[in-house]
Amino acid sequence: MACLSLAIGATAFAQQDFSSVIGARQGEMRVLSLNLGILGNMARGNIDYDAGMAQIAADNLVAISMLHQEPFWPAGSDNGAAENTRALPAIWEDQAGFAEDWSDLGTAATGLQAVAGDGLDALRGAMGPMGGACGACHDDFRQPR
Amino acid sequence: MACLSLAIGATAFAQQDFSSVIGARQGEMRVLSLNLGILGNMARGNIDYDAGMAQIAADNLVAISMLHQEPFWPAGSDNGAAENTRALPAIWEDQAGFAEDWSDLGTAATGLQAVAGDGLDALRGAMGPMGGACGACHDDFRQPR
Repeated sequence: MACLSLAIGATAFAQQDFSSVIGARQGEMRVLSLNLGILGNMARGNIDYDAGMAQIAADNLVAISMLHQEPFWPAGSDNGAAENTRALPAIWEDQAGFAEDWSDLGTAATGLQAVAGDGLDALRGAMGPMGGACGACHDDFRQPR
Repeated sequence: MACLSLAIGATAFAQQDFSSVIGARQGEMRVLSLNLGILGNMARGNIDYDAGMAQIAADNLVAISMLHQEPFWPAGSDNGAAENTRALPAIWEDQAGFAEDWSDLGTAATGLQAVAGDGLDALRGAMGPMGGACGACHDDFRQPR
């Protein structure tokens, strides 16, 4: 019965509605994904390189990286307690590591911003650190599908 | 039969998948909404005023307002041609007006950012222009529910 009691307790806590915060943090990821997709498609030759659009997309990654993350991750909105999220409890257990990963995203985005308009080779060279920053955070803090 | 023919034509064009861009632009709105909600709840006394959190939320509005909008609004992704969007064709018919409304959001967000940490009265005074900027754009460019 101990396990069942814990389960009931968790359900009671889950009555708080985190749909707005979860929608917002998934929203910032969707903005990242759209703009990173433009750059990735240029880097892979799926679409023509366009210096102006590459700069726009890289600028947008930097803008998102400037978002303070505090409002997006209230305690109790992890995937064990809330619905429709893959956010692991590790986010709250290792807040310093989570903050460092977000900071690394900003560093990679700033690197992309500096060269995205300088041609396809320059863009390609700055894509690796960005992909690394995304992957590092997802590996540690996001539930795999 | 003319109307039916037009409808079939629109359906054919709608085969392009705009789900990523529509998700991303709804995502930027969700980030705005979350952070504006924090400030609005403080202004209305629903939650205690907190200078640090008010500054964070206002900074986040500014970060979103810095997003270049070009990648978010490809032609053909209006609510007449695409699913799951309330984006009116007026966005594409009056691109200068749409850009001006987005710029006005940035101005209002910067005004909030300047005073959000200076107390509840200062915050309240800067909320009106922000609400006005949201409403002006929605009135012109978003389908009512």
